[in-house]
Amino acid sequence: MISGKKLNDYISVDCVVFGFDFEKLNVLVVERTLSDDSGKVEFSDLTLTGNHIYEDETIVEAADRILFDLTGLYDIYLEQFKTFASPDRLKKENDRKWLLHDGRNPDKRIVSIGFFALLATQKVTLEWKGRNVKWMPIGEVKELAFDHNLILEEALKALRNKLLHEPIGFELLPDKFTLSQLQKVYEIILDTTFDKRNFRKKVARMKYLIPLEEKQKGVAHKPARLYLFSREVYELTHKEILNFIV
Amino acid sequence: MISGKKLNDYISVDCVVFGFDFEKLNVLVVERTLSDDSGKVEFSDLTLTGNHIYEDETIVEAADRILFDLTGLYDIYLEQFKTFASPDRLKKENDRKWLLHDGRNPDKRIVSIGFFALLATQKVTLEWKGRNVKWMPIGEVKELAFDHNLILEEALKALRNKLLHEPIGFELLPDKFTLSQLQKVYEIILDTTFDKRNFRKKVARMKYLIPLEEKQKGVAHKPARLYLFSREVYELTHKEILNFIV
Repeated sequence: MISGKKLNDYISVDCVVFGFDFEKLNVLVVERTLSDDSGKVEFSDLTLTGNHIYEDETIVEAADRILFDLTGLYDIYLEQFKTFASPDRLKKENDRKWLLHDGRNPDKRIVSIGFFALLATQKVTLEWKGRNVKWMPIGEVKELAFDHNLILEEALKALRNKLLHEPIGFELLPDKFTLSQLQKVYEIILDTTFDKRNFRKKVARMKYLIPLEEKQKGVAHKPARLYLFSREVYELTHKEILNFIV
Repeated sequence: MISGKKLNDYISVDCVVFGFDFEKLNVLVVERTLSDDSGKVEFSDLTLTGNHIYEDETIVEAADRILFDLTGLYDIYLEQFKTFASPDRLKKENDRKWLLHDGRNPDKRIVSIGFFALLATQKVTLEWKGRNVKWMPIGEVKELAFDHNLILEEALKALRNKLLHEPIGFELLPDKFTLSQLQKVYEIILDTTFDKRNFRKKVARMKYLIPLEEKQKGVAHKPARLYLFSREVYELTHKEILNFIV
């Protein structure tokens, strides 16, 4: 505690960081290894990214700090989606050992506030600060520490639901993207396929999708036109409708 | 602690209970009065409804318990919408006095998980268990205790957003309702007006709104037809669309 700041023992923030690499939806995971005093590894597994909050910090500040520490980026799309506080969320054997080793009481309930973050994987340098984090395709995630499988599942639900109602797919793409890339984001997350012509017809009506004069570079196929998403235009042009009336 | 159960000091649940009375959107508030040892009232104000959670309870169980205690009802529509944990959320003078009087440490951060609940006001008997709760029209709410104005504001945002995308307006009406009552719920919460004919045209396409042979009773005007909402039909018939493409 060189900084004089103190971590709150019972409030943590877990960030489900989703990244898209044009092919798959990935999640950022951290390696957790517990070694005994002689350096012998007791176990090694994976967790989502998170931390306790400092006493003088809000939960959003904590989430921003965690994301910056992991990715070197500020201003990432971030959304609080659900809070986890089940009495038995920290009761698996490895988790108890981990908490005890960390000087925490495993019988004390820790509330964790779940956020999900969206970004394009190529924006991140994972070696930043030498952290032991890596991208893992959602479909390859096995058992995670604590209740992190549940947190991931709920984050995916929240992401899918949000994606149907608000233009957040763009957050997973580079600033300039092709329509095929855009279609792919939606298809992968919603686990569906769209008819290309219909998709483009709909997109043509979206004034907030700005076609550029620029084209893709360095691709083997015929380079496609690049587009920008304008949140400003979206805010000014989209109509809110009673969407349940469909 | 006759039951042997113990309340968790730092995790609470706040429920924003919305009720519709065919005219206005209301919220359930509780009178909080602090008296000194001689019985003299130090202050009296209003809070939302909430409580700390028991050590063996999940947060949803706590919310269900709080709602049952207040309304005598189970199976109320309930949704976790946001968690509140700002370091200064319990720092107003009256709140500090209240916490001290209650044997709590006002310098300790309490995380509160916000839920909103929806119901028709006439389903509730407020005298149930002699609780000091009352309905208050949203527009008449003045300063509340703690950060409850913020919690109410965020609950309203979440309600409005949800109402645009999912059929939850029905939760605020009796089981059988007229189309005018349905239109009114949406108009009041979204603070807008709909053209009656257009609204009815849209409603006619909603297979999950079932017209009954039954009509209103005991009204001065020409009695209107009653409708049911079928969640089962909704789940089977509604199409999910990319609603942002509008």
